[in-house]
Amino acid sequence: MTALPRLRVPEGDRAARVAWARLVEPGDPAAARLVGAVGAEQALHGLDPASALAQRLLPRLETLDVVRDLEIARALGARLVVPGDEEWPAGLDGLAAPPFCLWVKGPLELREACARSVAVVGARAATGYGVHQARELAAGLAERRFTVVSGAAYGIDGAAHEGALAVYGATVAVVAGGLDRPYPAGHAGLLGRITAVGAVVSEVPPGSSPTRWRFLSRNRLIATMTQGTVVVEAGLRSGSRNTATTARDHHRVVCAVPGPVSSAASAGCHVLIRDGAILVTDAAEVAQEVGPIGELAPHKEGPYTPEDDLEPVHRAVLGFLRVHASTTAEDVARQCGTSTAEAVSALGILVANDLAARDQDGYRRARRPSPT
Amino acid sequence: MTALPRLRVPEGDRAARVAWARLVEPGDPAAARLVGAVGAEQALHGLDPASALAQRLLPRLETLDVVRDLEIARALGARLVVPGDEEWPAGLDGLAAPPFCLWVKGPLELREACARSVAVVGARAATGYGVHQARELAAGLAERRFTVVSGAAYGIDGAAHEGALAVYGATVAVVAGGLDRPYPAGHAGLLGRITAVGAVVSEVPPGSSPTRWRFLSRNRLIATMTQGTVVVEAGLRSGSRNTATTARDHHRVVCAVPGPVSSAASAGCHVLIRDGAILVTDAAEVAQEVGPIGELAPHKEGPYTPEDDLEPVHRAVLGFLRVHASTTAEDVARQCGTSTAEAVSALGILVANDLAARDQDGYRRARRPSPT
Repeated sequence: MTALPRLRVPEGDRAARVAWARLVEPGDPAAARLVGAVGAEQALHGLDPASALAQRLLPRLETLDVVRDLEIARALGARLVVPGDEEWPAGLDGLAAPPFCLWVKGPLELREACARSVAVVGARAATGYGVHQARELAAGLAERRFTVVSGAAYGIDGAAHEGALAVYGATVAVVAGGLDRPYPAGHAGLLGRITAVGAVVSEVPPGSSPTRWRFLSRNRLIATMTQGTVVVEAGLRSGSRNTATTARDHHRVVCAVPGPVSSAASAGCHVLIRDGAILVTDAAEVAQEVGPIGELAPHKEGPYTPEDDLEPVHRAVLGFLRVHASTTAEDVARQCGTSTAEAVSALGILVANDLAARDQDGYRRARRPSPT
Repeated sequence: MTALPRLRVPEGDRAARVAWARLVEPGDPAAARLVGAVGAEQALHGLDPASALAQRLLPRLETLDVVRDLEIARALGARLVVPGDEEWPAGLDGLAAPPFCLWVKGPLELREACARSVAVVGARAATGYGVHQARELAAGLAERRFTVVSGAAYGIDGAAHEGALAVYGATVAVVAGGLDRPYPAGHAGLLGRITAVGAVVSEVPPGSSPTRWRFLSRNRLIATMTQGTVVVEAGLRSGSRNTATTARDHHRVVCAVPGPVSSAASAGCHVLIRDGAILVTDAAEVAQEVGPIGELAPHKEGPYTPEDDLEPVHRAVLGFLRVHASTTAEDVARQCGTSTAEAVSALGILVANDLAARDQDGYRRARRPSPT
């Protein structure tokens, strides 16, 4: 058994949380349990050197320097947000292993921004269709005053942020690496624009590289910071299916946008819908599911026509009339299987509604007016 | 009140049913109630001349000639199928106003063909995508020994019949007009091919033209002759939504194929799915819903990779290894937040699984073998 080295950690809860974020990977269940039980500071300074957790931390304890970490964050212009802070997003508290702290950069107040927010996520290998839909959906949600939360990846994520930015809406990027490591490199400009007007968030300290594990862990933040997750395009092995599963497990709304069944990029969305996710086709439908009760999307129907109000028998009679030739009431009755009196009555109603016209030879169908 | 003319109707149930099919429009509730209560023959010959129904029938009673109707059917090569016949499709009996009789042409035994059948229906104004999917779906269902039932219209219906015919499968066209009136005219050839190997069915007598009311009535036959209905493409006002509603009301399975949300031709399918229809992407998924229990479609997952079986910590360790540079176990431990012993153990497991390789400088990620 190796003794613990002297800790380079200032006093207080915030510094202890930075230490934990540096010492263990996101979502570490043992560390989360201990910090949850006795608090970050006590968990760190009272750590039993004989415990499995302590032994596991040894390699990183040697290089731990929280003072330097805090200085780096300050130099980056990032603020540290910890549980109990006014800015801490309420949704994260439901996680089994919530982040120890968050590094946040940008003018958005995080808790407020997340209080009415939707995650719009999807495949990096998106199609033109998916990118277009993500942008439209995010813009529509932002216009409805939802914050659009995503992961700043290529493809759907980037398009979601872009869509929100395009309408001057609120958007939050939750990234898998440190805030000083814009990733992917091609999105450094996008991340800069999000930082300028929204917020970029990470649970790993500056200097941390984005790893596969951290991407998966990051997804649990996106899924629980928000009230709902919309998957726009996802292959069968897409990480966004993982985000959707986490959202569902935490009783968040899960929506998915369908696409051609011939498109591999939509296959994951179709599996989600078959497994219970709500099919959505636009921002209004997402808002209806995610927003407070009363934000109802209009039920989609075709355009109204005067024929919609007709009773079946009148509609049947109308179906027999022609525009260019007249028909007698007796003929209509025979064709429609009504009595002559019923046919005359129906024809009268159609004429009164400008759907039919009468001339000396009988009845004609009125020319349909052009829609106004 | 006018007295009834002398009826030109031979004796027996079959002739009386032909008379009723000629006298009223499909689905007529009053006539269906009367025939259901006292039988077709008694309902006709005992018809009270003072009743509203009788007065309504007068215009058609004058031209009724069942002997001629039976001769015409015989000349067409059509057979008459009535309730109680071995060939009568069982599913129709659940209708409030079942057909009085069916005119059937083609070698398929109708009841047997319908006992394992799916309706594949959709918009006339189909896209290339919809036509392709309808054909694929119908072919896949026919290969699974389902009879494909549809309405022979342009677009999805025609493609569904074509798909079944292409794999020498069973297909039934239920048409809205008389069997001597191939409609649409451009599908006369298709209807001929269906007649040659499958069956063409109508509930209206030869000579009847297809009308809007008869199209809607016809849909209730398609919906209830089958165990399930799949809508492939449908606009918001498509008649196939009406078929789907009838299928649902009669506790049949309702499935819909999604498409791009930007396609008006898929909008009706998306509404159906949002209202509870099952999203399907291929014939296997339809068969799972419609077929007897046990015909399970494979749950769609991505291809298997050896990494799938790894525990999270091993996967995390693997994520840190590079193909072109070696890393020490201590470095891995620091990066992954494990103890050195855990890192060594994980690396050993990865090497044993050919996912990592060891050299004098430490560990490298193994080159991924090309999928076999």
